[in-house]
Amino acid sequence: MTGDLSGGDLSRLRRLNALAVIGVLRGEPALTLTEVARRTGLSRASTEDVVRELLERGWMIEAEPTAGTVGRPARRYRFHADAGRVLGVDIGGHKILALVADLDGAVTHTGRVAVTPQMGRRQRLAAVDRAVGAVLADAGLEAAEVWASGVATTGLVDATGRVMLSEALPEWTGVNVASHVGRLVSGPVLVENDGKLAALAESWRGVARYAKDVVFLLAGLRTGAGLIIDGKLHRGFGNAAGEIGALPAARWVQALEHLRSWPGDDPPADPDAAVEDLFLAARDGDRKAGLAVRRYVKDLAVGASALVLTLDPELVVIGGGFSRSGDLILEPLRRELDRWCVRTPEIRVSGFGDEGVALGAVRLALDHVDAVLHGPGELVDPKHFLTVERPRTRIEP
Amino acid sequence: MTGDLSGGDLSRLRRLNALAVIGVLRGEPALTLTEVARRTGLSRASTEDVVRELLERGWMIEAEPTAGTVGRPARRYRFHADAGRVLGVDIGGHKILALVADLDGAVTHTGRVAVTPQMGRRQRLAAVDRAVGAVLADAGLEAAEVWASGVATTGLVDATGRVMLSEALPEWTGVNVASHVGRLVSGPVLVENDGKLAALAESWRGVARYAKDVVFLLAGLRTGAGLIIDGKLHRGFGNAAGEIGALPAARWVQALEHLRSWPGDDPPADPDAAVEDLFLAARDGDRKAGLAVRRYVKDLAVGASALVLTLDPELVVIGGGFSRSGDLILEPLRRELDRWCVRTPEIRVSGFGDEGVALGAVRLALDHVDAVLHGPGELVDPKHFLTVERPRTRIEP
Repeated sequence: MTGDLSGGDLSRLRRLNALAVIGVLRGEPALTLTEVARRTGLSRASTEDVVRELLERGWMIEAEPTAGTVGRPARRYRFHADAGRVLGVDIGGHKILALVADLDGAVTHTGRVAVTPQMGRRQRLAAVDRAVGAVLADAGLEAAEVWASGVATTGLVDATGRVMLSEALPEWTGVNVASHVGRLVSGPVLVENDGKLAALAESWRGVARYAKDVVFLLAGLRTGAGLIIDGKLHRGFGNAAGEIGALPAARWVQALEHLRSWPGDDPPADPDAAVEDLFLAARDGDRKAGLAVRRYVKDLAVGASALVLTLDPELVVIGGGFSRSGDLILEPLRRELDRWCVRTPEIRVSGFGDEGVALGAVRLALDHVDAVLHGPGELVDPKHFLTVERPRTRIEP
Repeated sequence: MTGDLSGGDLSRLRRLNALAVIGVLRGEPALTLTEVARRTGLSRASTEDVVRELLERGWMIEAEPTAGTVGRPARRYRFHADAGRVLGVDIGGHKILALVADLDGAVTHTGRVAVTPQMGRRQRLAAVDRAVGAVLADAGLEAAEVWASGVATTGLVDATGRVMLSEALPEWTGVNVASHVGRLVSGPVLVENDGKLAALAESWRGVARYAKDVVFLLAGLRTGAGLIIDGKLHRGFGNAAGEIGALPAARWVQALEHLRSWPGDDPPADPDAAVEDLFLAARDGDRKAGLAVRRYVKDLAVGASALVLTLDPELVVIGGGFSRSGDLILEPLRRELDRWCVRTPEIRVSGFGDEGVALGAVRLALDHVDAVLHGPGELVDPKHFLTVERPRTRIEP
């Protein structure tokens, strides 16, 4: 048994060292060679070697010298987050939200187009085109410069990016979201359910970032859920995890009825605005509005308890549109969970408002970039992402 | 960047190579040096080196030469599964089952003592002493020769091996099972909930061994559940995962009432035998018994659907005492899941009868052995396990 390493071993080691350096630089402002060496545990010589390679390839750049330093300051390096751009799109019932972000996930540009739940497939897809077109133009990006795109949609999504089932939006079942968005940008298009992506966003950089097991509740005009298990998004064998709302005993369908029946018997013209009014009235002490919110939370808590009793998570996050009224939901939800659960987890309200889903879509796109970067074979160059072949998906007529 | 390895690296590599050889030998009848080298990818020289060390330490032994081979046969080696013994105990409402197994998990001896759900703490613990005493005597084992013990109990268990809450057995909440069993055997005593351990057994060597995500239903005079997520037992943040039965909307409490009300209004003297009679009568075409089973499954399926909708598992396993009547449960359960679930997973009946929980307890003990073997530091010798300090637990008066 010897310490000999083959050429293959050395090339693997070199690549692992490069990824280790990228790893310590990401999310840091800028580090000196000495700091990089200390944090990676690599020798000075190996660190210099790796840094030279990463600078050449364009994964790192030299940072501006810090002002006010006496004498010649040590050179500092940072991850080149501007080397590429990803797109995140949330296709919702009430809005299309498109975000452009750099490789650190910092959102640089935002495009938003209002839609209604009643819109058909054609109108909604046209709104997607407008939102994506606007954010790319705003960012000064060609379609070919997008490395990868993440797209969130309501409903169940299959592995090709097609909506298998959507009960919330008309004519939405069967839409191939991946191939539609794939006409607007180059690079792979990853499509996932909105509740799952909002959970991913919380786990990535939201209130759930320090928790391993999380139940995320997408509380809005549609109720959904996403699960983080052992720090990772749990998709399920058929990508249908978190669909507790399908069980009548979970009472999520009834939950929304309490909000919809306010203020009168006629369905309001804009249900979103009506619910916002309801929460405002409840906050102002309106008895009837307060009762409607309590009844909503009581029913929401049955399905939420089923999720909590199943997983026993560290944390429950309230997200989605209603999270802006989280102060009205949090305490009554805690009381109801106390009633049903063996152990009530900590409950927190999302800080992302209605942008959590789109942020999760950005993360989905970045996950793809990371998977390629950490995948088998040689370390890739940034330009590799501009030449990636689109995964083959059926193009719709 | 060079291929130099420090002394620490070399010692780590030597240990990893030894564990790799143990890994390929486990679960195999016997392998030649050439076969070991091929399966581990180690050089011939490294393999000889590792095999010599493992033989010296007692982790491997030379296998008997195969009869009928012409000429001098190549030496064959196997993992020394007899180097140690572990204990698995199931403390149930109706029986105490104690198993002794070798390091491959092969059960060599079994001890069984009948108990009743009505028994108090003192009587049940005395029965545990008898079952463990009997199986150790039968196996010819001293208490000090047990490397590790796994114990299954109904109820919620805390990290010290104490029952936090048990509604099924009288005087059982608060019992420190770890410290009680720790008086009978040396080595660490790991305690876990019965549904979780039965799930672990299915994942280890039962019908769920090829599935990553599994919902296990412990269907018996008490209904429980255990979850396997990404191939591992999911315990939950407070060790309370799978407790969906606590939610009235899941209908598991009502489910059992349908079986208990048979054949008449008086509670039967032996509920276990009465339910067995009920299943027999249902199989014989008794209309009333058939109706009771269908109602039981209908209610069982509500909680089961909540688990399935939450996780979207690959597989549902029906285990526990009623799994012997799995043929009567499987089809109606599938129909009910079809009714409520977005995607009905495959459903299989456990092949372990009422021994699955105790087998899971064996696996829990072996997990401890593996954790020490694969833990940090030098490769340990088998004799290390005879000198392990007991984890400190509160000794009960």
